[in-house]
Amino acid sequence: MASLRAVARLRHLAPRTHLQQRSYVAAAAVKQTQRSGEQPFFPNEPTGPIVQTAIPGPQSKKAIERLDKVFDTRSFNMIANYQKSYGNYIADPDGNVLLDVYAQIASIPVGYSNPSLHAAASSEQMISAMINRPALGSFPSEDWASILESGILRVAPKGLDQVFTAMAGSDANETAYKAAFMWRRQQDRGGPDVDFTADEISSSMINQAPGAPQLSILSFKTGFHGRLFGSLSTTRSKAIHKLDIPAFDWPQATFPLLKYPLEDHAEENHIAEEEALADVERLITTHPLPPCAVVVEPIQSEGGDNHASPSFFRGLRKLTKKHNVLLIVDEVQTGVGATGKFWAHDHWDLETPPDMVTFSKKAQTAGFYFGNPELRPNKPFRQFNTWMGDPARAILFRAIIDEIERLDLVANTARVGGYLFEGLEGLAKRFPGEILNLRGKGQGTFIAFDSPRRDEFVKKAKGVGVNIGGSGERAVRLRPMLIFQQHHADILLEAMEKILKS
Amino acid sequence: MASLRAVARLRHLAPRTHLQQRSYVAAAAVKQTQRSGEQPFFPNEPTGPIVQTAIPGPQSKKAIERLDKVFDTRSFNMIANYQKSYGNYIADPDGNVLLDVYAQIASIPVGYSNPSLHAAASSEQMISAMINRPALGSFPSEDWASILESGILRVAPKGLDQVFTAMAGSDANETAYKAAFMWRRQQDRGGPDVDFTADEISSSMINQAPGAPQLSILSFKTGFHGRLFGSLSTTRSKAIHKLDIPAFDWPQATFPLLKYPLEDHAEENHIAEEEALADVERLITTHPLPPCAVVVEPIQSEGGDNHASPSFFRGLRKLTKKHNVLLIVDEVQTGVGATGKFWAHDHWDLETPPDMVTFSKKAQTAGFYFGNPELRPNKPFRQFNTWMGDPARAILFRAIIDEIERLDLVANTARVGGYLFEGLEGLAKRFPGEILNLRGKGQGTFIAFDSPRRDEFVKKAKGVGVNIGGSGERAVRLRPMLIFQQHHADILLEAMEKILKS
Repeated sequence: MASLRAVARLRHLAPRTHLQQRSYVAAAAVKQTQRSGEQPFFPNEPTGPIVQTAIPGPQSKKAIERLDKVFDTRSFNMIANYQKSYGNYIADPDGNVLLDVYAQIASIPVGYSNPSLHAAASSEQMISAMINRPALGSFPSEDWASILESGILRVAPKGLDQVFTAMAGSDANETAYKAAFMWRRQQDRGGPDVDFTADEISSSMINQAPGAPQLSILSFKTGFHGRLFGSLSTTRSKAIHKLDIPAFDWPQATFPLLKYPLEDHAEENHIAEEEALADVERLITTHPLPPCAVVVEPIQSEGGDNHASPSFFRGLRKLTKKHNVLLIVDEVQTGVGATGKFWAHDHWDLETPPDMVTFSKKAQTAGFYFGNPELRPNKPFRQFNTWMGDPARAILFRAIIDEIERLDLVANTARVGGYLFEGLEGLAKRFPGEILNLRGKGQGTFIAFDSPRRDEFVKKAKGVGVNIGGSGERAVRLRPMLIFQQHHADILLEAMEKILKS
Repeated sequence: MASLRAVARLRHLAPRTHLQQRSYVAAAAVKQTQRSGEQPFFPNEPTGPIVQTAIPGPQSKKAIERLDKVFDTRSFNMIANYQKSYGNYIADPDGNVLLDVYAQIASIPVGYSNPSLHAAASSEQMISAMINRPALGSFPSEDWASILESGILRVAPKGLDQVFTAMAGSDANETAYKAAFMWRRQQDRGGPDVDFTADEISSSMINQAPGAPQLSILSFKTGFHGRLFGSLSTTRSKAIHKLDIPAFDWPQATFPLLKYPLEDHAEENHIAEEEALADVERLITTHPLPPCAVVVEPIQSEGGDNHASPSFFRGLRKLTKKHNVLLIVDEVQTGVGATGKFWAHDHWDLETPPDMVTFSKKAQTAGFYFGNPELRPNKPFRQFNTWMGDPARAILFRAIIDEIERLDLVANTARVGGYLFEGLEGLAKRFPGEILNLRGKGQGTFIAFDSPRRDEFVKKAKGVGVNIGGSGERAVRLRPMLIFQQHHADILLEAMEKILKS
């Protein structure tokens, strides 16, 4: 943990150029490696944070002022200089360099300015994909199959061998919902060969049943699935996301609120999960807009990092199968390695796979996986749009997958997550009442805890060189990148100790 | 028109390598230029189509077969090789090279493999944007203001100086709708400083009024605004897009169906437009879900290339002002130069600008422009998502704008569009009954006509070397790129003549 001391020293120095800092921290990196016995994935990565100004500093303030005239800046957290950001470290225009365990709301997979991604982004295949963007559903490129097979589909969840590509998490979920509605109506109609009735056709054009059916998607309380009209109708995390926006009258089920530590509350938690499942069954069987799918996050992320046990999810799979309702697993935030498995639902040991799994964020592209051919609508152009995703981003995801394999990063998050969790348990003991409901054990680095002073905690973190995020009402959520190593965990733990002591 | 004869000759030759073809057509290009007196924008562009196989040819069929296992291929039009596509010409894996007047459903602005875009896509700024994708609402890059100002905002419609960035046309429209709902509810509430009531907060979480308000967006019959749940509720073009998808019970107004030629139907058309405006006013004042915005395309594109007069749109602007309803102009397909103005609504000579203008497609990025600060929600995080657009695509749009200015492409579409329209009028006279309701005069290259054998016409076009698209039930829509020149128009007209003769 020499690095924070190094930072302290740096603060007393006159501002240096970035290159000077880089060579300074590179020298420190050698020591770091020797002490922990761990090889850094990126030898040129800074070895520790550098805090030179209050954040936002003067340059950042200028950038915000300029932007505010044309862009809503009120949600800004900090201004970044990405060309100077590297590995786990985010740089700002004022020379500050923070250890980033928020990672663009959990969406940077393998580090800033990753050299392997840089090579992929400089390739002629990528440049052509950028400047010749196809309408994928009409004019796909000759190499689209190979881009899918060697990328997106190489990491497809077990049992799911097809993909519908999209642009971001919201439309990934909405297109999955559309697939679910079409599947259910096709069943009602008597199969793919039964044609639409004239009444269905004409009523659909005026947004009325039977063409626009009175069906629903069931989601869970405190769940988050996006912010467009359909996805927002399933989002239940915070009122600020939903206020003033018309919504479908779709049902929400109770999500089990587990008590921690888990080992002291096994019986209560089991009951909470059984009650939640009973609520799901009640809504499936009695809601006036019958649900044709249940959508669920493996770990409710925006809603406050709420976990449930593998047994709960196995129960949900059984229940949905029993009632012929689809199970959509929203892995937009949990997917792509951070939980110590590539997909968080790999932890569940399901007997049959989910019907659809949506992805985005760390994949840097989006869409949904599925296995059942009946989830392809019976006619073309029913599930369609101009771009239907982005080959450039699909090529980038392939490079991300390559990098995850090269550095064995899923094993890394499992290992480092365990180390970090232990360290946090230690801190929780030393600062009683400050780190509550520590959760995410065995879930890689997908760790969170509640803080009685959450907003203050998150704000103070920048002063000690860490960019950290919250979720829900009082959770601090850790969302480091997959390249977060033991020595980064040490820096994070030391920084947290400083905050807790202050 | 030497090029089609050249093609005819080429068909009798053994297949050549791409480079051989390129040098062959380059030689022809010289002749072409000399004859028309027009300098080609891209000297290396093929001078004419090359049709070597039926389309799809054997290589394309192989690619489709491979893709079909993992991706829905039923909507495929043709397989492309974009690295071999250049300028106005799209290449396929079988050595066919077609003049492309469909352009990825109107979304390629300045030609395939455009050298200026290639340079922009190879820049370090672009590569950093690709591999360090920010959560724009939280951690924008230091250069985001300059990227916006020198790109997206440089071409902002008159009176609109702010932007909300998005990913594609659907979410551009949906975020504009969200802005409209929040704006209206804020007015109802008594201004930005009046806080939400406890009832609004709690009801919003269960998708009920008053938190989820009983309000609507008014759209027009045969309009198209996207395929997600909110945007699809305003889309009225074809049942196949809407069937089986739940929709909001929002109103649709009559769109004036003009008769052609316009000069022979002035009185009827005027009445049709007045009736449509009366229908809008009736729905605004009486619909049970009061509309807080009207969304309209300058030219209804997917719905069949339906035009209305500038006077209709001026009337719509007046009507919406009168009833305190927002006017959202959906320029997803019409925007960025193809109509002979940068924005199609520039043709209308409005007294006050639209409240919001949405864009996507040829911008290669998406979002909505606005001018009224009240369209920024009163609190942060109300209009928000992780990525909120894509800086890489915003950088590309800037390069597109630079290229449009460098080659004066808006003037080009106005000029070439006029030439093409005259040529089509000539064909329509020579083949009575085959080219009906020719429309788009004075609208650049945004030209369409009805065909009694539309699907056959579009299919046959490939055989004579042209990739062309349809819209609505029977329209052939021309959507050439902005770099479409007079000699391309000649090739298109000659190809159409061949189809009509056959």
